[in-house]
Amino acid sequence: MDFEKYLSDKKSIIDKALDRFLPTEESPPVILHKAIRYSTFSGGKRLRPILTLATAELLGKEIEIVLNFACGIELIHTFSLIHDDLPCIDNDDFRRGKPTSHKVFGEAIALLAGDALMVLGFESILKSTENRMVKKQAILKALKEVAYYIGTENMLGGQVEDITVEDERIDGEDLRRIYRKKTAALICVALRGGAILSGADQKQLKALTSYGENIGLAFQITDDIIDILRDQREMKKPTYPYKYGIKESKIEVEKLIKEAKVSLEIFGKKAEFLSNFADYIVSREK
Amino acid sequence: MDFEKYLSDKKSIIDKALDRFLPTEESPPVILHKAIRYSTFSGGKRLRPILTLATAELLGKEIEIVLNFACGIELIHTFSLIHDDLPCIDNDDFRRGKPTSHKVFGEAIALLAGDALMVLGFESILKSTENRMVKKQAILKALKEVAYYIGTENMLGGQVEDITVEDERIDGEDLRRIYRKKTAALICVALRGGAILSGADQKQLKALTSYGENIGLAFQITDDIIDILRDQREMKKPTYPYKYGIKESKIEVEKLIKEAKVSLEIFGKKAEFLSNFADYIVSREK
Repeated sequence: MDFEKYLSDKKSIIDKALDRFLPTEESPPVILHKAIRYSTFSGGKRLRPILTLATAELLGKEIEIVLNFACGIELIHTFSLIHDDLPCIDNDDFRRGKPTSHKVFGEAIALLAGDALMVLGFESILKSTENRMVKKQAILKALKEVAYYIGTENMLGGQVEDITVEDERIDGEDLRRIYRKKTAALICVALRGGAILSGADQKQLKALTSYGENIGLAFQITDDIIDILRDQREMKKPTYPYKYGIKESKIEVEKLIKEAKVSLEIFGKKAEFLSNFADYIVSREK
Repeated sequence: MDFEKYLSDKKSIIDKALDRFLPTEESPPVILHKAIRYSTFSGGKRLRPILTLATAELLGKEIEIVLNFACGIELIHTFSLIHDDLPCIDNDDFRRGKPTSHKVFGEAIALLAGDALMVLGFESILKSTENRMVKKQAILKALKEVAYYIGTENMLGGQVEDITVEDERIDGEDLRRIYRKKTAALICVALRGGAILSGADQKQLKALTSYGENIGLAFQITDDIIDILRDQREMKKPTYPYKYGIKESKIEVEKLIKEAKVSLEIFGKKAEFLSNFADYIVSREK
């Protein structure tokens, strides 16, 4: 398979679907819709929704079945980035080389654009009802999964732990738990939602979840390694490479990617894309 | 009917259901769950979820059918209050006589607690699937209504307009539009969601929506009158009584309440509670 072509084809499908779904910049309140579109179309690689589409194809389904869900995950991801960048949390002025939402639109609009993107995320998933091939029961289950994986026990809880953890006392187990919540959870639900809407069985769901947790952790550790190597950020909080060194962190990433691939074995050759994807997300440049 | 008893009985049912639904303060992350419970149990009168329960009873259904939805609306309302109070928006230090979330927990936790309350709101509504009397189709429709009424065309859009409107140019039409979005929309969907889950027909839905819009507007104008009379706040932005005077504002409120009651006529005597409720919310003390 042509991995790069698969990625760019799917990215293009997602970009178009997001553009169709989101309110135009001309519709009032103009500034809110501008802010929503600014962050949604600011160079994201669409990794999470691509995982959703790939899951449908892995399970022999057409991507149309999960496209609204995939867009919903990307919108929720965008919400979380805007709020994370706000002065009261990470206080980041730039993301992907562009000024963050609050630098362009001010804090109040950035806050409300983030809120609105979460609502739009749920709304996009709810549009799945328009496709008669998708079962209502599956949509409700997928929505519950999203609420669980972005909620207080997972993504949002992980963000809270990330900013409240006591630096001195933190150990590897804490770091892995925080990474699993704040980063791996959304990746897991991108896969699980795609699987549920595609009619996956329990064994397949479990395998994809294990894959998602492993690549999610590896993804976050890689992010931290890149940050340390480029020295782009002040070291505001402890990270895996800061605590264990770059060499050991790279060994951990390799181990996680290997485990991720083992989880895919039940799918055989059909999981080729997901297998390549595991290598891809830890080899990326930022 | 004993109006006050109806209110307090329903409030008690909602308080208990919220307590059962929300994660305990002991479950990690403790500070996030403390913040979520602090704002949820800080003296709210539960007006919106009471409207949901009353709608079910108006339509001859048991309140159990809509209780999860009602709690979801209250959690979403709580999210919107926490974010509204933040320094970048209204910068309020007190709400209902208690320090606001960011004064107690700091801005970062208040922000994330607000985010989590929106997720919990959707999650509570999704719990409606556990009641076999509720149709899946109706739950999905109710969820779509929530996304629409709190989204960029309604509640969140109204908040944006509220902070970006040019004070000099604003006219009565602008103010009514902003009030309809930022205040009436959530009241409307509290009624509409209750109605949809109770199997209302189009005529009933339309009547309840008109009732909700009218009491929502009246509620917001009354709020502004109270603020001016008590002189509690600096006049940060134009309001109805500020622009038209207290006398004309009170006449407008009376007109809106009258229209709200006209909308209820199709329900006959069964709408007694909602009719009394219209008088109640404009007579309240803050």
